[in-house]
Amino acid sequence: MIKKFITFEGLDGCGKSTQANLLKMHFENRGEETLFLREPGGTPLGELLRTSILKKNVEINPHAEALLFAASRIQLTEEIKKYYTKKTIICDRFLDSSLAYQCGGRGVSLEFLKKINTFANIEPNITFLIKVNPETSFKRVLAQGKIDRIESESLQFYEAVYEFYKKLAKDNENRIIVLDGHQKVEEIHKEILSYLRL
Amino acid sequence: MIKKFITFEGLDGCGKSTQANLLKMHFENRGEETLFLREPGGTPLGELLRTSILKKNVEINPHAEALLFAASRIQLTEEIKKYYTKKTIICDRFLDSSLAYQCGGRGVSLEFLKKINTFANIEPNITFLIKVNPETSFKRVLAQGKIDRIESESLQFYEAVYEFYKKLAKDNENRIIVLDGHQKVEEIHKEILSYLRL
Repeated sequence: MIKKFITFEGLDGCGKSTQANLLKMHFENRGEETLFLREPGGTPLGELLRTSILKKNVEINPHAEALLFAASRIQLTEEIKKYYTKKTIICDRFLDSSLAYQCGGRGVSLEFLKKINTFANIEPNITFLIKVNPETSFKRVLAQGKIDRIESESLQFYEAVYEFYKKLAKDNENRIIVLDGHQKVEEIHKEILSYLRL
Repeated sequence: MIKKFITFEGLDGCGKSTQANLLKMHFENRGEETLFLREPGGTPLGELLRTSILKKNVEINPHAEALLFAASRIQLTEEIKKYYTKKTIICDRFLDSSLAYQCGGRGVSLEFLKKINTFANIEPNITFLIKVNPETSFKRVLAQGKIDRIESESLQFYEAVYEFYKKLAKDNENRIIVLDGHQKVEEIHKEILSYLRL
């Protein structure tokens, strides 16, 4: 079994990648071997797919997109189980992202998403959902300048994803910890450490 | 609706790409606008995915592979329906390939394959399955020299795919025409034209 599997979730620009990296550094400072992965990606196949999925100006049907994320995730979970069982793993996005973006954002059915993700069967021990309102997310992404295919969606899309994340948090309150992403980076980091009893 | 949707199937090295191209030329000589597509590929997304799927030395889990083919296929069918409804379409591999290779070859369940391909919903009008025995296929592929990830599978894999193709032909005898791929190129081409009443 994997030692610890921690995932970070939230809208683009919510600060989850920053927090995931800070947490990795914290673990490593304590001498705990930690692997930082991301979705889509995290494996040689996944990183190849990431380029295709996020490429701008390439048409991707919502169901095709859902299948690509699932393919990347299956590969990721397989390689985690094969190679990294003794490590603490921090993952920037996981299954919740597919549910929020593909079901909430694109309208792909939950039943289809669950079916295609059947073989991506690792359950996170804990998930930090960093919540910023859709307007903030939208503005932060625009301010970054270099935005990918999914980040370039409309505010309405962000709102739909946001609503779905809220629903996921409610339905999985034992696993998903909701954090206020409008706080300072250090404050969020401290909260995360306290939840992990670190 | 699409004017005509003709697919070619068979083991690697069976000669299907040659036949598909000959048929396209035949249609075009008659002044019939014809589109030649291939799987995986046939769309900007599909061609990006093709590179990832066929790349050697990249680990791909059988279920992830099945999802990638399905993603490519959904995109293909969507773009066909959007852009090419007035053309005759010839496609080098389609859903039967996924069933033969992923179920027959890799052991992915038929139920899973059907589910993930739900939205790739175009039925070919006719399918030409060019049959060569697995040993011939295997030898022809090796002789080509430059072989991709799937082509570099074992003879045993080729045999399993072959058996599944035979089953598909039996179960879909109204759609799938089996041709002997050990014949000369021109003879097979003539047979195809006669089946199409051309």
